[in-house]
Amino acid sequence: MKFSCLKSELVQALQIAGRSVASKPQTPILSGIYLNANDGTLEVQATDYEVGVILQVKAEVEKEGEIVVSGRYFYEVVRTLPNEEVVVEYDRSTEIIKISSGKSTFTLLSMKAADFPKITHIREGKRFTINSVVLKELIRRTIFSCATDETRPLFMGTLLEVEGNKARMVATNSHRLAFDEGRIESEMAELRQYVIPKRILEEVQHILSSEIPEKVEVTCTQSEMSFKTERLYITTRLIEGRYPEYRRAIPSEFSKRVILSTAEFLSAVSRVGLIARSSEYNTIKLMFNMGEVHIYSDNPVVGKAEETVQASIEGEDIGIAFNSSYLIDVLKILNSESFILELNDSLKPALIREPDNEDFLYVITPVRTKN
Amino acid sequence: MKFSCLKSELVQALQIAGRSVASKPQTPILSGIYLNANDGTLEVQATDYEVGVILQVKAEVEKEGEIVVSGRYFYEVVRTLPNEEVVVEYDRSTEIIKISSGKSTFTLLSMKAADFPKITHIREGKRFTINSVVLKELIRRTIFSCATDETRPLFMGTLLEVEGNKARMVATNSHRLAFDEGRIESEMAELRQYVIPKRILEEVQHILSSEIPEKVEVTCTQSEMSFKTERLYITTRLIEGRYPEYRRAIPSEFSKRVILSTAEFLSAVSRVGLIARSSEYNTIKLMFNMGEVHIYSDNPVVGKAEETVQASIEGEDIGIAFNSSYLIDVLKILNSESFILELNDSLKPALIREPDNEDFLYVITPVRTKN
Repeated sequence: MKFSCLKSELVQALQIAGRSVASKPQTPILSGIYLNANDGTLEVQATDYEVGVILQVKAEVEKEGEIVVSGRYFYEVVRTLPNEEVVVEYDRSTEIIKISSGKSTFTLLSMKAADFPKITHIREGKRFTINSVVLKELIRRTIFSCATDETRPLFMGTLLEVEGNKARMVATNSHRLAFDEGRIESEMAELRQYVIPKRILEEVQHILSSEIPEKVEVTCTQSEMSFKTERLYITTRLIEGRYPEYRRAIPSEFSKRVILSTAEFLSAVSRVGLIARSSEYNTIKLMFNMGEVHIYSDNPVVGKAEETVQASIEGEDIGIAFNSSYLIDVLKILNSESFILELNDSLKPALIREPDNEDFLYVITPVRTKN
Repeated sequence: MKFSCLKSELVQALQIAGRSVASKPQTPILSGIYLNANDGTLEVQATDYEVGVILQVKAEVEKEGEIVVSGRYFYEVVRTLPNEEVVVEYDRSTEIIKISSGKSTFTLLSMKAADFPKITHIREGKRFTINSVVLKELIRRTIFSCATDETRPLFMGTLLEVEGNKARMVATNSHRLAFDEGRIESEMAELRQYVIPKRILEEVQHILSSEIPEKVEVTCTQSEMSFKTERLYITTRLIEGRYPEYRRAIPSEFSKRVILSTAEFLSAVSRVGLIARSSEYNTIKLMFNMGEVHIYSDNPVVGKAEETVQASIEGEDIGIAFNSSYLIDVLKILNSESFILELNDSLKPALIREPDNEDFLYVITPVRTKN
């Protein structure tokens, strides 16, 4: 195997691949990056069995071939090379990989390509395409609501529901739920549901973030899913099990409606939340009264905080307590200058949404307090 | 106590003070910040017994007084306040500290001022003044050479030697030694030596970094040292014991002299060092030969690296091995485009210095290799 390519393009591919290389690999070969130089392209593969990534890098291939090299060292060596042109060559007799650029020459030990668990493309399965910008936004607006504890594995993932020309993402930890909907660029005849590990969506979000808008082809079976763009292929296992019927958790009728400034409410809640932080459930209390919202917290070991913000309030006065983190999380991802908070009483779930956007919903369960 | 001040100035003081608050305080009072409002000034104090900091903040004092407040919460609350004007008030009857700004009101529990180990100024001792720019440069050019292991406590500090109108700093871990000299703005009749904990010098460097050049008054006894600027006072314990006679470690005669480009050599050594990194002593080898330096490393579990850089070489050819980190560290702090490397043989210490600067010296001991 012998090829030359641009350092910057190779570094970018190795950086993405490196995130899928297991930091504590089950077997040594999983610490490796698989390289396949063929037909004007270098293919880079990395996997930790859970996730697999394939990347294409433009290359001038002098001699075709495949090999596996230490992911960590190959990345660090290439990253620091002095020139933009990089030549990589595998010598079958010494089993050594030679990397040269300018007056620098490195040799790295190799591992056998035959030992690498090569990533197979999902050939059969439901397929749809979605714009990368839409996909990233669905992820950004829901993923933060996933559970972090492992007692309910399904809640550590995000539900992807596809139906007609719509894709919906839903994430919950059973105390709050985020729902967002976007268009897909093809039709899915019947409703399909998949639960994707949070970690994979973070990867997809990260990898797509540096790119211009492009089409993402998504292929799904009941156990696997892949995301494909022009030069990237990610495959992942899905979380097994049936996601709970989330629609039942979304209340539809409310007796009170409050409109608040997003930025102002966020900064007030963040401040009051400071004092609540070391308390159980980060509890802060809200009192809606006479066109104002009073926000306060009381932590016997630290002190108290009190804020007032203006609001447009329809319905009777009410007091309600929330986990301040659950409010802060959603306020940070809202796109609108103001938002709508809909309530019933101090024990029933509340709803947060944007004024001119029916696609996004956030349900938040109040904290029960003594007084 | 009641005062008002500017949020930005208070935040800056609390940030500096917060670095001296013990993260795991021996007693609760040490997690506190001492506030003393008096005569148009708020004095802020923090200490962990090792180090003490006093800062002055301009304030409009309505009612004089002193109190101690949780360092962590006070800083975080003030930092997030909405307006630039902050009012702080202590209510003796409730023992509560009230912080208000705009429509935000916080109350924090207080601790007794009488319980706080107030920082005393060092009244007697040797005294000199130094420009903050000179002091920071002395620190930057030596501190990285301190030892990190605790077997020789003296080497975890930096020697400050004052004599005439010169201040010198020396740091070593016994395998390499950095020496730098600068002018002081007053005279010290006889030679004095003090060993300052590395952590303190890092603090001094950090605190002075955001400031315009100013005079720093240094006061020293055999066990304590203080640094004083217009609005800041830092006091620290010194490391006890007699620092070894460092001059004996600086060789004065050499049989070989090499001039190298700082940036080019740094990037070559960094690359070759990648491969050496997981080996014992990060060993890289240098061969000086025919106007070129060949830099290489060989790590049986990773691979090999080889680089060549141009050099002006006086004296016979020589091969020598160094810990690559010790080279990288010094190359990063050199101010000159090229530097001088002086050598005897492959077992004797080498010297690195700048062409037009007699003040700085770096001694580096070679690594003994089998071949």
